[in-house]
Amino acid sequence: MKQYSFKNDYSEGCHPYILEVLIRTNLIQQNGYGYDEYSDEARILIQQKMNHHNADIHFVSGGTQANLLVISAILRPHESVIAVETGHIFTNETGAIEATGHKIHGIQTSDGKLKPEHIQSVLDAHTNRPHQLKQKLVYISNSTEVGTIYIKKELEELSAFCRANDLYLFLDGARLGQALTSEINDLSLDDIANLVDIFYLGGTKNGALLGEAIIITNDQLKAEFGFHVKQKGAMLAKGRLLGIQFLELMKDDLYFDLAKHSNIQAMKIKSAFQRKGFKFLSETFTNQIFPILSNAQIEDLSVNFDFYVWKKIDEKSSAIRLITSWATPDDIVEAFIRKVENL
Amino acid sequence: MKQYSFKNDYSEGCHPYILEVLIRTNLIQQNGYGYDEYSDEARILIQQKMNHHNADIHFVSGGTQANLLVISAILRPHESVIAVETGHIFTNETGAIEATGHKIHGIQTSDGKLKPEHIQSVLDAHTNRPHQLKQKLVYISNSTEVGTIYIKKELEELSAFCRANDLYLFLDGARLGQALTSEINDLSLDDIANLVDIFYLGGTKNGALLGEAIIITNDQLKAEFGFHVKQKGAMLAKGRLLGIQFLELMKDDLYFDLAKHSNIQAMKIKSAFQRKGFKFLSETFTNQIFPILSNAQIEDLSVNFDFYVWKKIDEKSSAIRLITSWATPDDIVEAFIRKVENL
Amino acid sequence: MKQYSFKNDYSEGCHPYILEVLIRTNLIQQNGYGYDEYSDEARILIQQKMNHHNADIHFVSGGTQANLLVISAILRPHESVIAVETGHIFTNETGAIEATGHKIHGIQTSDGKLKPEHIQSVLDAHTNRPHQLKQKLVYISNSTEVGTIYIKKELEELSAFCRANDLYLFLDGARLGQALTSEINDLSLDDIANLVDIFYLGGTKNGALLGEAIIITNDQLKAEFGFHVKQKGAMLAKGRLLGIQFLELMKDDLYFDLAKHSNIQAMKIKSAFQRKGFKFLSETFTNQIFPILSNAQIEDLSVNFDFYVWKKIDEKSSAIRLITSWATPDDIVEAFIRKVENL
Amino acid sequence: MKQYSFKNDYSEGCHPYILEVLIRTNLIQQNGYGYDEYSDEARILIQQKMNHHNADIHFVSGGTQANLLVISAILRPHESVIAVETGHIFTNETGAIEATGHKIHGIQTSDGKLKPEHIQSVLDAHTNRPHQLKQKLVYISNSTEVGTIYIKKELEELSAFCRANDLYLFLDGARLGQALTSEINDLSLDDIANLVDIFYLGGTKNGALLGEAIIITNDQLKAEFGFHVKQKGAMLAKGRLLGIQFLELMKDDLYFDLAKHSNIQAMKIKSAFQRKGFKFLSETFTNQIFPILSNAQIEDLSVNFDFYVWKKIDEKSSAIRLITSWATPDDIVEAFIRKVENL
Repeated sequence: MKQYSFKNDYSEGCHPYILEVLIRTNLIQQNGYGYDEYSDEARILIQQKMNHHNADIHFVSGGTQANLLVISAILRPHESVIAVETGHIFTNETGAIEATGHKIHGIQTSDGKLKPEHIQSVLDAHTNRPHQLKQKLVYISNSTEVGTIYIKKELEELSAFCRANDLYLFLDGARLGQALTSEINDLSLDDIANLVDIFYLGGTKNGALLGEAIIITNDQLKAEFGFHVKQKGAMLAKGRLLGIQFLELMKDDLYFDLAKHSNIQAMKIKSAFQRKGFKFLSETFTNQIFPILSNAQIEDLSVNFDFYVWKKIDEKSSAIRLITSWATPDDIVEAFIRKVENL
Repeated sequence: MKQYSFKNDYSEGCHPYILEVLIRTNLIQQNGYGYDEYSDEARILIQQKMNHHNADIHFVSGGTQANLLVISAILRPHESVIAVETGHIFTNETGAIEATGHKIHGIQTSDGKLKPEHIQSVLDAHTNRPHQLKQKLVYISNSTEVGTIYIKKELEELSAFCRANDLYLFLDGARLGQALTSEINDLSLDDIANLVDIFYLGGTKNGALLGEAIIITNDQLKAEFGFHVKQKGAMLAKGRLLGIQFLELMKDDLYFDLAKHSNIQAMKIKSAFQRKGFKFLSETFTNQIFPILSNAQIEDLSVNFDFYVWKKIDEKSSAIRLITSWATPDDIVEAFIRKVENL
Repeated sequence: MKQYSFKNDYSEGCHPYILEVLIRTNLIQQNGYGYDEYSDEARILIQQKMNHHNADIHFVSGGTQANLLVISAILRPHESVIAVETGHIFTNETGAIEATGHKIHGIQTSDGKLKPEHIQSVLDAHTNRPHQLKQKLVYISNSTEVGTIYIKKELEELSAFCRANDLYLFLDGARLGQALTSEINDLSLDDIANLVDIFYLGGTKNGALLGEAIIITNDQLKAEFGFHVKQKGAMLAKGRLLGIQFLELMKDDLYFDLAKHSNIQAMKIKSAFQRKGFKFLSETFTNQIFPILSNAQIEDLSVNFDFYVWKKIDEKSSAIRLITSWATPDDIVEAFIRKVENL
Repeated sequence: MKQYSFKNDYSEGCHPYILEVLIRTNLIQQNGYGYDEYSDEARILIQQKMNHHNADIHFVSGGTQANLLVISAILRPHESVIAVETGHIFTNETGAIEATGHKIHGIQTSDGKLKPEHIQSVLDAHTNRPHQLKQKLVYISNSTEVGTIYIKKELEELSAFCRANDLYLFLDGARLGQALTSEINDLSLDDIANLVDIFYLGGTKNGALLGEAIIITNDQLKAEFGFHVKQKGAMLAKGRLLGIQFLELMKDDLYFDLAKHSNIQAMKIKSAFQRKGFKFLSETFTNQIFPILSNAQIEDLSVNFDFYVWKKIDEKSSAIRLITSWATPDDIVEAFIRKVENL
């Protein structure tokens, strides 16, 4: 059997429907910079899906770009960000946020999720103004970087806390599809739009070639956002490429079908590990799982499959990370499960 | 006849060969972030085309991004840039370069080309160090934003001047294909690689969906460049999308064929204007032309064609800008020429 | 006779009254960071002098610091500055403004003064938003870097234009004392406070050891300014040093007496040159003059006096810059005038 | 008895000798921007004191300014800083370092001191380059913000570790005088200069009106530093003010005498608390002490003395912070001790 990679959810190209539309529309002339018909239609479709007809929507090419763009556009120089330390912006974006001038206050958690008491602790430690920074933006990811998700009650509490404390709530949705289609999810896209000030729908990790849709629901954050998109190099001349992809993904809920598929594939593998009595680094219900294996078992699995050894547990065992995607085929999952059963 | 746009060279999608390869390779798993096989092959092919086998090559998604990334990666905080005022970075990138902390000294020219004496004048005006900035990077575009190109002697003189004055020479090649296939060009890709320190080959304006290939030939500028690509949000998770495009464009010199086509279409239109005795804002030999028309003639042409009215000449006339591309069809050019002949 | 320097107005220490108060108050404990009694009193006194009892006032140590602090505190990332090219921020602060992320659009003038039509020309050239920057702040200096001043009508026109175009007007007052005590001045401190949004009163060039008083009269710009003062390193632990100086300078209008003295000394020298028929680079009525001399005359004067050769006029002559200060003694001025009379 | 403040070591003016020299030299003309005779002499004197005759020395006005200037001058955009979380740059400078684009990795410690294993842990967590930052500068303070000091062996180990790992070592010496005159100190100024790459000698907290002397001993960091001083607004026009102060402080080791005085006063108070059996938050040997008192005792002391309640220990008690200075008089210390004895 050939090697298959569970290293990440961006190892393949895009859903075939997208390629079909790229071919069909290829020679139709369009305006540049996101003013094309497809981007317009995609924006309307997204607004409809979340019942926010006045939301501003900007398509950009990647997650780091979306994060640095949003944060630098919103904050003034003396304002800072609060995030968990596993948050993508905290350690995995080469200091992109700080490079725009803003500190991130990091919170240590085991499940990758931020709670009001975490934020309160940062506020409490920064009362000596103006010698200390003013916290102004809370960054969360859903699903989180460790595969967990926020349930509705948690997001409502966070949202209420942020509004009470004059903090913007920004949700990194690089894997929002996976969160919203998780078996334990009780949030809708509409809820997200209501509860946060600004967020994005990730395309890159859910069936697109590239692209994230930044969605601004807080009116105060809408003005002049386009300047920032351009200034940070995030405005594609052929914006049609992003518009077409989001149009196709949103149409008939393909986006959610793909995310659900990735979750199901991961959950099948998770069950296999559970049946064999394996433990996990954290309990996840999306397309990432972190089973703990012995070194020998890891080596055994590595013969046919690629994945990251995520965290050393002790001398004899480590947690591995397995990520499935919209493109992970059933036969591969079955082959992997057979391997697990024979570990 | 339906409306056709000569407003820019990014109104269509990409060359069909690229779409074919996207389809063919779509489900083949690849490493992310530019470590895929296609990007590797594309890099080797580009190195071969210019006989610089040690050049470092990074693919990014757009021109503004390439410009801000290169300049911020190279310069220290007290170092500045010299460019012509028509240079893309000077007024058309929403202050992207200054947003990374660096001043651009602007030079007024009629032909969009920088000469050693321009640079010398800036150096002469900044001798009161450290109260004045240290100039360290010279930015040029080829072809320029006004459609002109550098001939070999000019680029050699600029290069020699920069080396003698400890200045880096950076060439914005968003339309480098058009420059190198212009009928008056005497520069090769190899020459460019030898004469400048860092440059890029533009894909977006020459047949790609998106993408610019940043090429570093000065060894001093190579180290740790990838950090900057990531930090500025310019590193695509599915780097394969960029690799595939440049591989396809470079193979069999498709890139140069496309650029040549765009030049030829523009030159045909230019000849038509010349035959009718029209004057031009500047004399160009690439895919941009700037004929001067009366207001009535402009209105007449506008019935069937889209283009920018570029510069008011007097109350009765203006220069318009017409841009052709790899995708501009012969029949459209012929229809336009017939219109010109009847003006 | 010993060498005397007319190179600048910061060659001596401070007015002796300041030293006396420093001694008298030296061991009285005070709060740090500008919350001391002297700073409080100085703020009230300045508010009274200009009849703006709600103005916010922050003392910082120098002009470059005041400029970069004010501009970076006020502007959002996509907003830019308009200034004349002789403006201090444009070429004499090592790119301090751009280092905070903001472009300065430079205007060429002969007299160092900005007019509404200059600003309009920049606005007209930047209508392609969001690809071009949004201009938001107009920077002027009074007196200017070339020794000229704004009269009331000019400042009123500028102010009205800025308000009509949603632009902030910021006045660099490093030499505001000299402007307001010039023989041709018709502006009061009260007028300045009414017509601009933010400005500063320069201490360094008018009798203080160091210090500029930033004055914010536009309510929208007041909030949270202290954070920026601290973040940019401009908040002195012993703020008392600044408070004491401005208290002493403002008391009994010493500030204006000192400025007037510096103007008078320059005007005496100007008259001497005029009597001998010399021409000037520009007509100034403050403490800077720019007479045009032959090379031999320059050499002759240089034997006993230091000054800058400012601008080469032709092979045989140059303009020199002579600056007088609060400390320039009568006998030196007389000795210099005798020299001029014998040129 | 009147209220006396132990809140900080910058509540008074400066040592009287400095005022005397300011008066004596006040009207002697000098070059601006640190090119005056006093600054030159002060630089030579400092070089001699530490036996580093090639060290570059720049005088700036405050600690936050020194920190942001040094770090932004040294680091490239993708390089980061490692510091303890009590480090001044981490929480008490309004994000000044991040505002220049650089992340600070914070380390939690109980004694405010950084050890090689702390640094190693950060390096180990950032191996996924270029997606993670490159650590390049280690920031320490001596004495630390919590009153502790580094002994020679500790600094040697840190220095060796940094050199082995290609990290710059930067020492914030806002209270270096106190560290070097502590009763448990075994480091000389010469040692400091040998073991770190760049550091500063704090004047503001040890007898000056303002001023820190940045000292660069690593040759690689010397070039073009002046540009950064100017760009960040840290270059005083009347640099003489800083030169005179450091000249006076360094002459006859006044600097060390003043620091020693501040330490002795604190140690006398510490002994008084110890004799009464009080505990401390940390064991300090410089001019800061952190005794733990009951709420009633704190209230009692507050009647006559000002100080910060530093950290709540439990419902009934807190640690207070007492800081002494070069100016703290014996009679005040004795009065305070009598109060302690009666608690």
